[in-house]
Amino acid sequence: MTTQIRVMEKFACFGGEVIRLSHVSTSCDDRMRCMVYLPPQSRSGRMPVLYFLAGLTCNEETFLSKGGAIEHAARLGLILVCPDTSPRNAGITGEDASWDFGKGASFYVNATQAPWSKAYNMQRYVAEELPGIIEEHFMVDGKRTGILGHSVGGHGALICAMKYPERFRSVSAFSPMCAASKVPWGIKAFSQLFGDNEALWQENDASELVRRKSLECEILVDQGSEDRFLTQQLRPDLFIEACKASGQKLTLRMQPGYDHSYFFIQTFISEHLLHHAERLSL
Amino acid sequence: MTTQIRVMEKFACFGGEVIRLSHVSTSCDDRMRCMVYLPPQSRSGRMPVLYFLAGLTCNEETFLSKGGAIEHAARLGLILVCPDTSPRNAGITGEDASWDFGKGASFYVNATQAPWSKAYNMQRYVAEELPGIIEEHFMVDGKRTGILGHSVGGHGALICAMKYPERFRSVSAFSPMCAASKVPWGIKAFSQLFGDNEALWQENDASELVRRKSLECEILVDQGSEDRFLTQQLRPDLFIEACKASGQKLTLRMQPGYDHSYFFIQTFISEHLLHHAERLSL
Repeated sequence: MTTQIRVMEKFACFGGEVIRLSHVSTSCDDRMRCMVYLPPQSRSGRMPVLYFLAGLTCNEETFLSKGGAIEHAARLGLILVCPDTSPRNAGITGEDASWDFGKGASFYVNATQAPWSKAYNMQRYVAEELPGIIEEHFMVDGKRTGILGHSVGGHGALICAMKYPERFRSVSAFSPMCAASKVPWGIKAFSQLFGDNEALWQENDASELVRRKSLECEILVDQGSEDRFLTQQLRPDLFIEACKASGQKLTLRMQPGYDHSYFFIQTFISEHLLHHAERLSL
Repeated sequence: MTTQIRVMEKFACFGGEVIRLSHVSTSCDDRMRCMVYLPPQSRSGRMPVLYFLAGLTCNEETFLSKGGAIEHAARLGLILVCPDTSPRNAGITGEDASWDFGKGASFYVNATQAPWSKAYNMQRYVAEELPGIIEEHFMVDGKRTGILGHSVGGHGALICAMKYPERFRSVSAFSPMCAASKVPWGIKAFSQLFGDNEALWQENDASELVRRKSLECEILVDQGSEDRFLTQQLRPDLFIEACKASGQKLTLRMQPGYDHSYFFIQTFISEHLLHHAERLSL
């Protein structure tokens, strides 16, 4: 059963093409938007693909516009796929009420509580449904798929990589929220998405997941030392501890002077894309 | 007489620093915003500086966020200065009325007609007042100053370079509005800024200026072939003709498939920065 895509905009970029598209999603009960970068190499063969999950208040365009990634993706021959950060037309009361939960802030999980459960199933969307659609419509080598993200999207990338190790062969994150079940952003969101189901809280907390079972691939994380969310919301200290406990290979670099912004991402994105390209070319 | 600057935000980026600042401006009768990138090299010596003028609806942040320029400025040792595109608090009736004139759309000239003339003097601001402030507060080598811009900001860069050849030693543009006095955007703006003073219309039209007197430096222009403003608003054909008439050295590259967006700018920005760096290092 083919899911149609609707191409909304196209932009030439570094010899390839940025495409904004939309399609219906059963996971999200909505028409979802997504942006894709196809490097010039993808005209002549199937290329590896990276999914980028953006953070709170962002959308499908933020990373390709502000991340400085396209130049390096074009050089390395990587397809980039940037889903939106949540459904936009779920019609749920309160989904516009705050910047850190609801629209633009799905937390990349599958909700079990009404009213969210009918549409806020972004984990299934980014890890199953969207890759299927992308593989159907673009010259993607689905066996060579990686995932990365920023902030709450970094949390999303880590938990998706750990729950779908067959799908995602490489993973990295900028300033990820490392312990969703223990920090204010996560507690606010999980209370509404999961209620008091403690098991689901744990299953969607990157540090808890990695403590249970390590991944084969090395995880790369960059974190700015001057990030204002560092100690309250992100907690890389808990992730480091959990990786040690399970023997997970982790390179976590504390970057002195850097903050939580896309100026930080611009600075180190080429090293993240290289991390993925090396692992996906194996 | 020192103009104070107020540092509003700082972001580490590629080993240097992005700074958002504001200061009072006599030219614009307002507190103006500006963003500056200081490459790591500027910690130890005075570096060359490039002014980037953005187009309609943009502001001081657009280029540094979306232009993909910082990586290359850091490598080449260029300071980037990005003024806002207009005064924001002039209190003029109608300045919010349209996207292509007024706030966010100053056209980089000095208005002579009331009510605009009290604040819309962006040419004096970007070519005289702002460089003075920047040289006072940052490690800039003012003798090595270049200017570039996009769209209406490309028009701004060209006319500033031609009217201030002692100030700006290198110039380039993306998709510039090349003949302001003959195209709808320019006619709408100049009617209000200059009334029917034909001489001022000509003195602020890049093609008319270059026809009268060529610059010593070569001008670099990139233009996308699929730019939807190409034939109605930009008119590079008139600029090519005028450069031929006066013997102006011009490299104008029609880039097949590219449009008017920052995805186009990202693609070719490294070549523009190199164009400036080579000329400013002489």
